Amino acid sequence: MRTISVGAGESRYNIHIARNFSGLSEAFAQAGLLGRKVAIICDEHVAVLYLEQVRELASQFAESCVELVICSGESAKSISTLTDIYGFLIDNGFQRDSVLVTLGGSVVSDVVGFAAATYMRGIPHVIIPTTLLAQCDGSIGGKTGIDIGAHKNVVGAFSPPRFVYSNVSTLRTLPPREFASGMAEVIKHGLIKDAAYLEWLTNNAENIYYKERDTFEELVAWSCEIKAGVVEQDEHERKGIREILNFGHTIGHSIEGLMEYSLTHGECVSLGMMGELRLSAVLGSISVEEISLIEVLLQDFGLPTNIANIGLSPDDIYNHMLSDKKVRNNTLRVVVLNKIGEAAVVTPTREQVLQALSIERSGD
Amino acid sequence: MRTISVGAGESRYNIHIARNFSGLSEAFAQAGLLGRKVAIICDEHVAVLYLEQVRELASQFAESCVELVICSGESAKSISTLTDIYGFLIDNGFQRDSVLVTLGGSVVSDVVGFAAATYMRGIPHVIIPTTLLAQCDGSIGGKTGIDIGAHKNVVGAFSPPRFVYSNVSTLRTLPPREFASGMAEVIKHGLIKDAAYLEWLTNNAENIYYKERDTFEELVAWSCEIKAGVVEQDEHERKGIREILNFGHTIGHSIEGLMEYSLTHGECVSLGMMGELRLSAVLGSISVEEISLIEVLLQDFGLPTNIANIGLSPDDIYNHMLSDKKVRNNTLRVVVLNKIGEAAVVTPTREQVLQALSIERSGD
Repeated sequence: MRTISVGAGESRYNIHIARNFSGLSEAFAQAGLLGRKVAIICDEHVAVLYLEQVRELASQFAESCVELVICSGESAKSISTLTDIYGFLIDNGFQRDSVLVTLGGSVVSDVVGFAAATYMRGIPHVIIPTTLLAQCDGSIGGKTGIDIGAHKNVVGAFSPPRFVYSNVSTLRTLPPREFASGMAEVIKHGLIKDAAYLEWLTNNAENIYYKERDTFEELVAWSCEIKAGVVEQDEHERKGIREILNFGHTIGHSIEGLMEYSLTHGECVSLGMMGELRLSAVLGSISVEEISLIEVLLQDFGLPTNIANIGLSPDDIYNHMLSDKKVRNNTLRVVVLNKIGEAAVVTPTREQVLQALSIERSGD
Repeated sequence: MRTISVGAGESRYNIHIARNFSGLSEAFAQAGLLGRKVAIICDEHVAVLYLEQVRELASQFAESCVELVICSGESAKSISTLTDIYGFLIDNGFQRDSVLVTLGGSVVSDVVGFAAATYMRGIPHVIIPTTLLAQCDGSIGGKTGIDIGAHKNVVGAFSPPRFVYSNVSTLRTLPPREFASGMAEVIKHGLIKDAAYLEWLTNNAENIYYKERDTFEELVAWSCEIKAGVVEQDEHERKGIREILNFGHTIGHSIEGLMEYSLTHGECVSLGMMGELRLSAVLGSISVEEISLIEVLLQDFGLPTNIANIGLSPDDIYNHMLSDKKVRNNTLRVVVLNKIGEAAVVTPTREQVLQALSIERSGD
């Protein structure tokens, strides 16, 4: 088991990366959370796979252990699920020192984390992420949130967990498309911060494909360290440092909205990164050869790279980008790469964005 | 206009105490909040009295100003009101730098403050309290919250406002029972922390009764300083220091629940303080003569002081106290006074509590 410490000051917590759940009791002990009331919350898919095992372990070190299974998918991030969780906690007499455990992906930890941040003005929260996206990305940074209608994460809180326990063996049961979706964010970490990581990913693509556990451990640890390094400098997202994590997301979110969520988040980020790499090329910082290598890497993990294939016009994508909640005074901020491993925020013109999206189209 | 600075570090903010609303623009300027989108949220009673005036002022220094009137009373502190506020903010295109303004009492600032703490993971919140309770108590300490069914404040966040602007002239329009309710917390501040304040209140009872504005300014400022002094040492209620603010509330909450909210919060706190003063006497720290003086002061402001008059038995009150969310392992923690102006937390026996509640009964 490896342990990485992330965050700063009172928000500091450990991420444990292991190959099974057996270290869970030790992790609870280290965090001073033995002998508490515990609620495990997961979605219906994860319940079938891991709930029994985690519940059995938890009942050995908890005062009592109850469980709540919520529906799966983004629709779970609602006021309605939140109200169910509050009701469940009240009915089970949960107090300020009781512990909420998220078992599952980022959707579950987002809504459960928000419930933990607000129930009795904050109770301890532990995350046991079971998806690649959650292990490498979602469980770092303390963001929690729910959607209101089509407005994603419009309500939430910054609230770090007490610890994260990532069992990389759970990644072996992920549906291929969901695994690929996580790989988009993993590749993003290399692109924005660490050329050596990107090279390692390229060299280990086969081991990753074959779900080799040593490689998984290394991958999760490396990604966590990169993301934690960015987040630690800007915990509450007030300094703009976290903004580089949006690489691929400005165009990606636009595609996600226009495709009405028929593509996974990672698939949209993959397409978005291709667009924003091409914008970097338009601005003169990245070569066409470098883009081709990254395109191959994304494709190796089953990710789409060609926006033209999904039938959206550059104009549609650009106009939808302007409607994003982060856009102020019609000034679009986009993350580009100065070079592989180094990101910067630019405010491109409409023409530059359209040119980037059209290069892609003509390269089709 | 007087200004008191409260809180610590990033949570530091000013409380302005004035006799009219004319300094509001200056207060927004000082807080760096000019030229923003502003939403004023108030209940239907306050809307009639002050909304037009505040809206007119706000529209001079805001980019735009919209308003939302919510229902009055404790029932407004619900998931349903919260959902309405989120929808209103989304519909009006509110962003992270937009400002929510609470105009009204603690119920409104509790729910609006929670909306502000969670919309887009936190947007600026300004409180313009119009009740004595809100000016002297509710607007200090950063607690926000909503109720789930009968569970008061079971969901919430610690989230200090950017500033508080108390216009003491608004206290002149308060219904007498609501004014008296606020006085219970004011008297509590003297009892737990400052014998000189209690003496000043006793000497100025008539000026307070006649709603003299100089006296109001002094009273609000003094109470704010006392409460802020306690809260600053224990911002997130983790160190037990804030617990002394619960003086009168352990018995008071029990009475409030048993009477099904037919008494105001302050009336229950008044009765609760009498009970907890008598418990102090049972424990030997406060004399019967001191209790009599406080009883007269409470009565002077129209507050009830005799539990026997409301038809509850000591046993009922004690049993309901044990069901409070703060009670762990059946160990009741009650705030008592070591002397006037100095509070302490004790864990009394059942017999001691019943004796305190019975002294009251026999003194009837």
